Amino acid sequence: MSATYRPGKDSFRSVLVIGLGLIGGSIAAAARRIDPAPLLYGVDVDPETLAVAIDRGLVDAAAQPDIAQSDGWLSDDEIDLIVLATPVSQTVEWLERLAVSGYRGVVTDVASTKSRVVAAAADRAGGFTFIGGHPMAGSERSGIEAAHADLFDGAYYILTPGAATDTNAFRRLHSFVSSLGARVVSVDVSAHDEAVAIISHVPHVAAAALVELASARAAEGGEDLLRLAAGGFKDMTRIAAGSAELWTGICLDNADAVATGLQRLCRVIGEFEELIESRDVDGIRTWLSRAADVRRALPAQWVPATSRLSELSLPVNDRPGVISTVTTAVGRSGCNIEDIEIDHQSEDSAMLRLVLTDEGDIEGLLRELHRAGFEPQFHSLEEGGE
Amino acid sequence: MSATYRPGKDSFRSVLVIGLGLIGGSIAAAARRIDPAPLLYGVDVDPETLAVAIDRGLVDAAAQPDIAQSDGWLSDDEIDLIVLATPVSQTVEWLERLAVSGYRGVVTDVASTKSRVVAAAADRAGGFTFIGGHPMAGSERSGIEAAHADLFDGAYYILTPGAATDTNAFRRLHSFVSSLGARVVSVDVSAHDEAVAIISHVPHVAAAALVELASARAAEGGEDLLRLAAGGFKDMTRIAAGSAELWTGICLDNADAVATGLQRLCRVIGEFEELIESRDVDGIRTWLSRAADVRRALPAQWVPATSRLSELSLPVNDRPGVISTVTTAVGRSGCNIEDIEIDHQSEDSAMLRLVLTDEGDIEGLLRELHRAGFEPQFHSLEEGGE
Repeated sequence: MSATYRPGKDSFRSVLVIGLGLIGGSIAAAARRIDPAPLLYGVDVDPETLAVAIDRGLVDAAAQPDIAQSDGWLSDDEIDLIVLATPVSQTVEWLERLAVSGYRGVVTDVASTKSRVVAAAADRAGGFTFIGGHPMAGSERSGIEAAHADLFDGAYYILTPGAATDTNAFRRLHSFVSSLGARVVSVDVSAHDEAVAIISHVPHVAAAALVELASARAAEGGEDLLRLAAGGFKDMTRIAAGSAELWTGICLDNADAVATGLQRLCRVIGEFEELIESRDVDGIRTWLSRAADVRRALPAQWVPATSRLSELSLPVNDRPGVISTVTTAVGRSGCNIEDIEIDHQSEDSAMLRLVLTDEGDIEGLLRELHRAGFEPQFHSLEEGGE
Repeated sequence: MSATYRPGKDSFRSVLVIGLGLIGGSIAAAARRIDPAPLLYGVDVDPETLAVAIDRGLVDAAAQPDIAQSDGWLSDDEIDLIVLATPVSQTVEWLERLAVSGYRGVVTDVASTKSRVVAAAADRAGGFTFIGGHPMAGSERSGIEAAHADLFDGAYYILTPGAATDTNAFRRLHSFVSSLGARVVSVDVSAHDEAVAIISHVPHVAAAALVELASARAAEGGEDLLRLAAGGFKDMTRIAAGSAELWTGICLDNADAVATGLQRLCRVIGEFEELIESRDVDGIRTWLSRAADVRRALPAQWVPATSRLSELSLPVNDRPGVISTVTTAVGRSGCNIEDIEIDHQSEDSAMLRLVLTDEGDIEGLLRELHRAGFEPQFHSLEEGGE
C-alpha cells in the first residue's frame, strides 16, 4: 500500500515581509524562487531600504509602515502570511498592531530568542495564528545589501509550534519554509532559548572575548598580534564582526540562559587550565580528544541516508497541540519531515500523514509516539509510486 | 639612484624535510613550485608516510631515519637546508643528532612554540646555523594526505632570528620561505610564545570548550544541540577537530603562557557576564561594538597599498645579531621584506639592503632604526628599472 507524495499544495499566495534586513530580505529573495512564486509585499522603517528591495526585485510592492492601521488592506484575503523580520522589541510592537488590526492569517517571526515573542503573541491572541520561527542562518554582514536567495540553503530553520498551534497553519508554514531551501525542525519554545544560548549566543560572546583579549594585549605594547592572526583565529572570530546592535538585543532577550552558559563555559575552560597547571598530559590529551571526536562527528550538512521517503500516518483528534506534540517528537529523533498532509475524516478526527526522509532514529520516534498514546503506522513510499 | 631588484639568487639547491605530516609535506609540495626547484629529500618515522610522499612526488628521494648517523651523507655539500617538521619533543632530539653529526648547513623547525626549541638549539650549538620558524597556517586535518602546495599561500610565516643568527643564512631562509607563498615576519623569540598563546592556543582551547559545553548539555538530555548548530558554531569550533596529540604537546610546551591566557579570557568573559546580569544595555553594546570594530579591521589577507617597492639600505657591521635587530624592527612596524641583499664592503662591514613592499609604518621604522644607532637610507625603486 503506497501513497503518492504531493508536495506544495495549498501554499501561501501572498506574503508580507516586515523588516527587510539580511533575514527578511533573504526570505523575500528565496521566496521568489518558489514555483508558483507568491506575491511579495515589503515594509521597512527605512524608505531607502524599501527602495533597494523593490529595485533589486526582492518584493513586488511596498506596503506602508502604518499598514496595520490602514482599513481593510491587511485582510487575510490579500495577505496569507506575515513574516516579522524585525528586532525582537519591534516584533512585539508589531504583534500588538496586528492584534488590533483584526488580521486573521498566519504570522511568524525570525527572532533568535523565542520566549518573549511567543508570550507576547499569546497575550495578544487576536484573530491571527502565530508560529514562532528561527532561521539558523546568518552572516557577519547585515542589511538588505547582504540579503541573498540562498542564505537558507542547507540551514536549519526552527519552528516552535505550541499547544495552541493550528495544524493547517503549521502545515502551510512548514511547506513555505522548506521551499526557502531550509530544513524545518520543531523545537519546544522553552528548550529553544537554552539551546541557542549554548550553540549560538555563548559562542558569539566567546568570539568577541577572544578579539578583546588579543586587542588588549596588543595595546599593552606587545607584538601586534592581530596582524599575525592566522586562519584559525579568523574563522573563530568571524561572527564577532556581526551587528553589535542586534547582538545586544539577543543577549538581553536571552539574558539568563546566556549568563548561565558563560559561567559554564568558564568552568569548562577553568578545568582545562588546571590540567595545564598540573602538567597532566593524559588529562589534557583525553580532554582534547573528546572535543575533537565530537567536532569531527558534526555533519557538514544534513544528508538523508538514501533518497527513499517513508510515510508515518497517525489517526489524531484535529485539535491544537497535536501538531506540536508530534513534530517536536520528530525533531528530537533527528528525523526530517519532507511534507505534512491532513485528511479530515470527521469534524474533529483526522489522519495526519508525515512524509519523512531516510534519516534519524525512526524506531525511537515510533516508540515515543506510542508512549504518547498515538497509533502510528509506518511504511515506505515507492519512488514516484501510485 | 635606483637599484635593480634581483630576487632569488643564492637559493637552497637541496632541502631535507624531516617529518612528512601536514606541514612538512606541504613545505615539500610548495618547494616543488620554486624555479629552479631544489632537490627534496624526506625522512619520516613511518615508512608508509614516506612511501606516500614519494608516490605523490612531494620528495625526490627518501633519506634513512638514521641519516644523522650515516657517515658523510649529511654533509652541507649535499643538503643546504634541513626543515625539522616534527613535534617539539622529536625536534629537540633531532637537534641533538644533528649537532653530533657535524652538519654545517642551515636548520629550521616549524614548532608552534619557540622557546624550548631555540634554547635546545643554542645548547647544542654544533656546526649548523639554527633559525626558528613557525608557519601560521594549518588545517583541522593532519598527516601527509592533507598536505598541499598552497597551504602557505597568503599565510604569515614567523622566523625568530636571534643575537647569534648569521646574516647570510637568514637571507637565504627568508627567500626560501617567501617562495613557499608565505610572508615572513621576524619576531623576537620571547615575544613569540606569548603572542601565539593569545592568537592561536587559547582560541583552540576555547573552541574545544564550546564543543565540550554543547556536548555536555546534550548528554544531560536537552535538545540535541549540536545537530542544530549553524555555520557560526561550525566555523568557531572547526579548529577543535585538530590532532589532540599535537595540541597536547603545544599546550604543554607553552603551558605558562596558555594558562595565563585562559585566565585572562575567563576574566574578559566574566566582565561581559556581569554586564548581562545587571542588564547594562550601554555597556553590552559598547563591549560588542569594540570587538566588532577590531574584528572588521582584520584584513582578509595582507595586500600592499601599491605594487611599488622601495629599498632600505643600512651600513652595518656584519656581525650576528644585526639581522635580528633590523628584521624584528621591520616586523613590528608592519612593513614587509620582499628581499634581502648584503654587499660586503670589507671583512666586517657591509651594506644591508631590504626591498620593502608598500605597506606598514615606514616612518616609524626609520625612527626606530635611527634610535638603534643605524643610518638607514630609504628610496623608491623604479619598477623594473635600473
